[in-house]
Amino acid sequence: MKRFFITLSYNGKNYVGWQMQPNGVSIQQVLQDALSTILREQIEVVGAGRTDAGVHARKMVAHFDFSGERFDEKDLVRNLNSFLSRDIAVHEIREVKPDAHARFSATSRTYKYYLTTEKDPFLHDFSYQVFFQPDINIMNALCEVLKEYEDFTSFSKLHTDVKTNNCRISEAYWKQESNTCFVFTITADRFLRNMVRAIVGTLLEAGRGKLDERGLRRIIEAKNRSVAGDSAPGHALFLHDVTYPNDTWL
Amino acid sequence: MKRFFITLSYNGKNYVGWQMQPNGVSIQQVLQDALSTILREQIEVVGAGRTDAGVHARKMVAHFDFSGERFDEKDLVRNLNSFLSRDIAVHEIREVKPDAHARFSATSRTYKYYLTTEKDPFLHDFSYQVFFQPDINIMNALCEVLKEYEDFTSFSKLHTDVKTNNCRISEAYWKQESNTCFVFTITADRFLRNMVRAIVGTLLEAGRGKLDERGLRRIIEAKNRSVAGDSAPGHALFLHDVTYPNDTWL
Repeated sequence: MKRFFITLSYNGKNYVGWQMQPNGVSIQQVLQDALSTILREQIEVVGAGRTDAGVHARKMVAHFDFSGERFDEKDLVRNLNSFLSRDIAVHEIREVKPDAHARFSATSRTYKYYLTTEKDPFLHDFSYQVFFQPDINIMNALCEVLKEYEDFTSFSKLHTDVKTNNCRISEAYWKQESNTCFVFTITADRFLRNMVRAIVGTLLEAGRGKLDERGLRRIIEAKNRSVAGDSAPGHALFLHDVTYPNDTWL
Repeated sequence: MKRFFITLSYNGKNYVGWQMQPNGVSIQQVLQDALSTILREQIEVVGAGRTDAGVHARKMVAHFDFSGERFDEKDLVRNLNSFLSRDIAVHEIREVKPDAHARFSATSRTYKYYLTTEKDPFLHDFSYQVFFQPDINIMNALCEVLKEYEDFTSFSKLHTDVKTNNCRISEAYWKQESNTCFVFTITADRFLRNMVRAIVGTLLEAGRGKLDERGLRRIIEAKNRSVAGDSAPGHALFLHDVTYPNDTWL
């Protein structure tokens, strides 16, 4: 039995998210089916994390085990890309240590969120249009506040099954990419469900002058989801990167 | 009666092209209907040129005449953007001299064509995937050859109603934008129907080693569309810019 990491990107528009669900098509399901068909063995894939319905991934990593004969990794990548719809692209398949785990071995995840301040016919599937000019200075000041805390219960979906709501945010900032486009980047060891979208929604409140540093501290310290801002829409969110220790790969 | 230039961009995926057609929805039609509804007067718009079915525009210019009372240009832009689908964005409306003409006054048009060499879930609606590594040096050498000629009959759709097939190409080059993305830029005073896509298809023949400089000269000098390469697909083509003399605007 050998274990492999598969690196892929996907346009989440037409999917219920990464995770298999009874009510629609998931990336995990489609990928498992493709691998099982091509490798002629029932394959199960485990992702680095979930992405919600409509959320995209520029880089998702998943692992799977395979007991059959050795395959050529490049051929398998090519076959998968022919087999899968144009919404999913496989970039690499590589053997890892038997105990490497796509979710538990990951040391960091990075997400990006895209904002536009003008109608854009080419970005409407990948960015969120706001009708005000966001104040990026106050938003970046609040990003520094976020990094002081570890318990993000106030930005988590209620009733999830995780044991702790602690996350270490190592990077969080907004950058203006053009006259009309702003990008938020956030990196942490782990994220709670819905956390990035709730943080973006809350920072946007600040960006339009409705929340200051004291208000943000009050929200975080309340440890109560209902006090934070609304979640920003999922279609503008990208899982951008997942990292692993260097000795993960064989 | 006053004349206005309207600047817009559009995602051509769901349209039969710029020009009104009996067999589907055109950008021109949708724009005319929106302007007529909002301005409460039958408006006709004349574009800087046609774009074929599926072709996009990052900047299209059109003119229209209006006899009613003065409107606020910014309000009209905002109203149009609310009214029009997310595939079309209006950027500016500005009064011009009464004899300025979106098509005949234009001094140059620039098109861009996007090529990818890897499956990309985010660019599939906006780029053409090829399964070889294009040789950009030979393609750029042939671009210099193109600029020596004026009669592009070999790259024009047959039986069009234009009086001359002469165009002056002022700029034509390929640029590698990333490991997997190549962009072709071409500027001319005018373009024949289908010309850019036929040129791209022909240059791609060169980029995969199937056409050299002598071959290209033979194609151009034949003045016969059937000797050039196939047209490259329209969904990767963008009308990128249209320019006018400085004294066009009032």
